[in-house]
Amino acid sequence: LASMWTDAVAAPALRTALAWATHFELRTLRLYGMPEAEIAETLREAAQRGVALDALEVTTCLRRGEVEVVTRFEPAAAPAYAALEALVRERHADTLFSDDGSTVDAQVAALLTAQGATIATAESCTGGLLAARLTERPGSSTFALGGVVAYANDVKTQLAGVPAELIARHGAVSTQVGEALAVGARERFGADVGVGVTGIAGPDGGTLDKPVGTVCFGVAHRDGRRLVRSTWLAGGRTEVRDRATTEALHLVRSLLTGA
Amino acid sequence: LASMWTDAVAAPALRTALAWATHFELRTLRLYGMPEAEIAETLREAAQRGVALDALEVTTCLRRGEVEVVTRFEPAAAPAYAALEALVRERHADTLFSDDGSTVDAQVAALLTAQGATIATAESCTGGLLAARLTERPGSSTFALGGVVAYANDVKTQLAGVPAELIARHGAVSTQVGEALAVGARERFGADVGVGVTGIAGPDGGTLDKPVGTVCFGVAHRDGRRLVRSTWLAGGRTEVRDRATTEALHLVRSLLTGA
Repeated sequence: LASMWTDAVAAPALRTALAWATHFELRTLRLYGMPEAEIAETLREAAQRGVALDALEVTTCLRRGEVEVVTRFEPAAAPAYAALEALVRERHADTLFSDDGSTVDAQVAALLTAQGATIATAESCTGGLLAARLTERPGSSTFALGGVVAYANDVKTQLAGVPAELIARHGAVSTQVGEALAVGARERFGADVGVGVTGIAGPDGGTLDKPVGTVCFGVAHRDGRRLVRSTWLAGGRTEVRDRATTEALHLVRSLLTGA
Repeated sequence: LASMWTDAVAAPALRTALAWATHFELRTLRLYGMPEAEIAETLREAAQRGVALDALEVTTCLRRGEVEVVTRFEPAAAPAYAALEALVRERHADTLFSDDGSTVDAQVAALLTAQGATIATAESCTGGLLAARLTERPGSSTFALGGVVAYANDVKTQLAGVPAELIARHGAVSTQVGEALAVGARERFGADVGVGVTGIAGPDGGTLDKPVGTVCFGVAHRDGRRLVRSTWLAGGRTEVRDRATTEALHLVRSLLTGA
């Protein structure tokens, strides 16, 4: 058997196959906050600029609200890939967040760990999904202190420290309340970073001003920095809740990278 | 076209097919806390007792820790199905919780709604997944007030009201702390029902006494009733966290049904 194996390995066809398999390159870019169609536009632009796209196998995929661009190529096509990646960086600098295949979950975990920072959540419409996602990875207890799910308005006030008059003035789904939830979570849990999420996952509860899918976010850092965002997410209740957690993680990432 | 359709509908073969499709029966039983192998044993027993299993198409499936028994049969086989279901009731009275296909999630939501009761959670290892599951369904805001994710021990004490000396004496993963989390959640949120979950999802943190997969639960009702449970769940971190939420929902169901 051993000599059969040696013979087989020496055979030209297998040697070629092994060489090919060994040197096949796979690169993954992730972009957030961009319609999938824009990456197709970028590929057309690349072709016009003479990038040798024929040598690249490019797959794009919309996953949890993120556009994933996976490219496979043989070593000889490395310059073509470099040209494509440069063009993506040029055109999508604001939405490209990962050039090594890392997810926003992994990046947030790595940033918190590197900065020795802790995090706490106060969430309404996501109902615990954000806390669950932050504690999904082994070892997350080093940075995740916990969170509060503030579904009822009373709970937002009493357990997450959101002033009742803020809810009365701006509504429970507002960037003001999103920010207050973030500040409340940070303070109540004694964390370095607080995250707040409040929105309308549906199917009921939407209004003309704030339709189902409206979600507001806030993040607050111990050093005083704060970010807020308001967005509208497509889809049913499950998709809105899921995508809102992705959006929240991206806002945390922005805070931690100072971007 | 209309007359072709009329002719087709009148054709004997299609009439037979339609009649068959119309009268095909589908029944789903769900059981919890039982090895899947036991249902196979029950099927063997049914055969021995002369139940006409040939007329039934029985599929069993292990889903989120629950055994699902789906049976399809033609109307003529209804007595055979009735005999099978009676045997399942006889042998598995303690674990059969659904004879109409309803999930434990739907049952808990219906019980809370029917009893006009509210619920709040205090969870450790499940990290928000239990709260997320309770708020997954539209309209859950009528009974789900919120919850606290108490990942750090300090948080269990300060935000979920677990006495520090209870953690020191019994360990954070204990039925005592599970019960204290339930009581704390109920009181802090002013809910009728409180649920507490604390466990070791892994991969680290296990000990000889309390290996990875050990999870303790408590539920507390406003009227003073309490239940606690300690269990060991198989699988990796994701499975342990997921199955722990199922176990917690079953404990809530037991409290609400008084079973």
